[in-house]
Amino acid sequence: MDIKSYKKDFEYSYTLGAFPTFELIEAKPSEVIEVFCSASFTDMEKLEAKCREKGIKLSVNDKIINKLSDKGNVYVVGVFNKFEQGLDNTKPHVVLVNPSDMGNLGTIIRTAVGFGIMDLAIIEPTADIFNPKTVRASMGSVFRIRHERFSSFEDYLKSFDTDKKYTNQGVSDNREIFTFMLNGERPLTVNDCPKPRLYSLVFGNEATGLPDKFLEYGTSIIIPQTEYVDSLNLTIAAGIGMYVFSQKKA
Amino acid sequence: MDIKSYKKDFEYSYTLGAFPTFELIEAKPSEVIEVFCSASFTDMEKLEAKCREKGIKLSVNDKIINKLSDKGNVYVVGVFNKFEQGLDNTKPHVVLVNPSDMGNLGTIIRTAVGFGIMDLAIIEPTADIFNPKTVRASMGSVFRIRHERFSSFEDYLKSFDTDKKYTNQGVSDNREIFTFMLNGERPLTVNDCPKPRLYSLVFGNEATGLPDKFLEYGTSIIIPQTEYVDSLNLTIAAGIGMYVFSQKKA
Repeated sequence: MDIKSYKKDFEYSYTLGAFPTFELIEAKPSEVIEVFCSASFTDMEKLEAKCREKGIKLSVNDKIINKLSDKGNVYVVGVFNKFEQGLDNTKPHVVLVNPSDMGNLGTIIRTAVGFGIMDLAIIEPTADIFNPKTVRASMGSVFRIRHERFSSFEDYLKSFDTDKKYTNQGVSDNREIFTFMLNGERPLTVNDCPKPRLYSLVFGNEATGLPDKFLEYGTSIIIPQTEYVDSLNLTIAAGIGMYVFSQKKA
Repeated sequence: MDIKSYKKDFEYSYTLGAFPTFELIEAKPSEVIEVFCSASFTDMEKLEAKCREKGIKLSVNDKIINKLSDKGNVYVVGVFNKFEQGLDNTKPHVVLVNPSDMGNLGTIIRTAVGFGIMDLAIIEPTADIFNPKTVRASMGSVFRIRHERFSSFEDYLKSFDTDKKYTNQGVSDNREIFTFMLNGERPLTVNDCPKPRLYSLVFGNEATGLPDKFLEYGTSIIIPQTEYVDSLNLTIAAGIGMYVFSQKKA
């Protein structure tokens, strides 16, 4: 295949580095097109065994590695088909409204997977979830999480309506929405955290946060902070929110 | 003064951007050498008033702004003397062992200040706390926190010994050390968090974490996480640790 520098409109993308490539092969083997590695990669045997096990084509090709590696320090590249598999509405969700930074998006995905929140809704416009920078920042967790893009938060909410047939079975009838906002009404404390069975944690854009209309959806949450900072970093706020909500309750 | 691109061995450094410069002027006016701004800066009146109030020299100088701004998008630059003021041993500390990324160091400082932990010990080698990138990632919080560098963790611990004279007054006799490690003994949970009056939260390097010898100091802590991630990002782990420990206890 003809390997070009990544562009957003490609139907495929790349993993840059051994760690995210192993995650790709492990979690989404059916989406792998092929794998390239450098002649100087030190863990060749493991990679060969893994590719053989999954029936994936592996070639040594330093020219391609060098072409795709922006910073050097890359010894393995995976080529994979982009995918979008929809959300499980019986599970907790993270909802990111207009995330603009690929590093932040990847870091939040990694953190969500770390806390067992395996469903991510993204409200457009958004940073590209399949850009190699996002994939790398996620440490390959993007291959573990289910994700779906929506053109608006209302469209995300409507996606539950299609599940109303299940509500009698109690499957998705009690999702609670929590919007993280600097003017949120409820402080998030360790001693008094909401304990919903099913929840969506909603976080806004890095620079602008969530617009005031999000005060109307569910419960707005503020992470208590001193007057000395303008706000917490988005990835930190999301990490704390996911940590607290995903904890097993007493 | 002759304005050169920042180097680590300078005795002064720069704030790049209006927000960290206002924080500099507000929190450390005595360390400010002078302030430059672009002719196109939109909040000139506020900046002029603030500089006048603090007796700080302000000049419009786009040439200097352009020279120091790496990415554009900078309209204000502050020039300040580097400082190190030592730690308050009657207060909680964050201890970073060999942080290597300036963005992470700045983000952790911002988060610490956000949670009211105003004392930072840094174990060398370390990323440069006064590099303009660190200052910017901290959003100027570096001017709010006290910090001190130590050549080893043992040296940091010894710095309390000098305080032993105070122990009879109960000032610094009961600091508890918590080391955050993937092989930590105690899971950090919302329901069962240690509640020390005085604590040091210790975090390792981005790539390598804390060496096993840190299992011997105080209590080692693990933030529970799924098998699907290698670890949490350092800034996320530090953010969660600081959030949980700094919360007012019931």
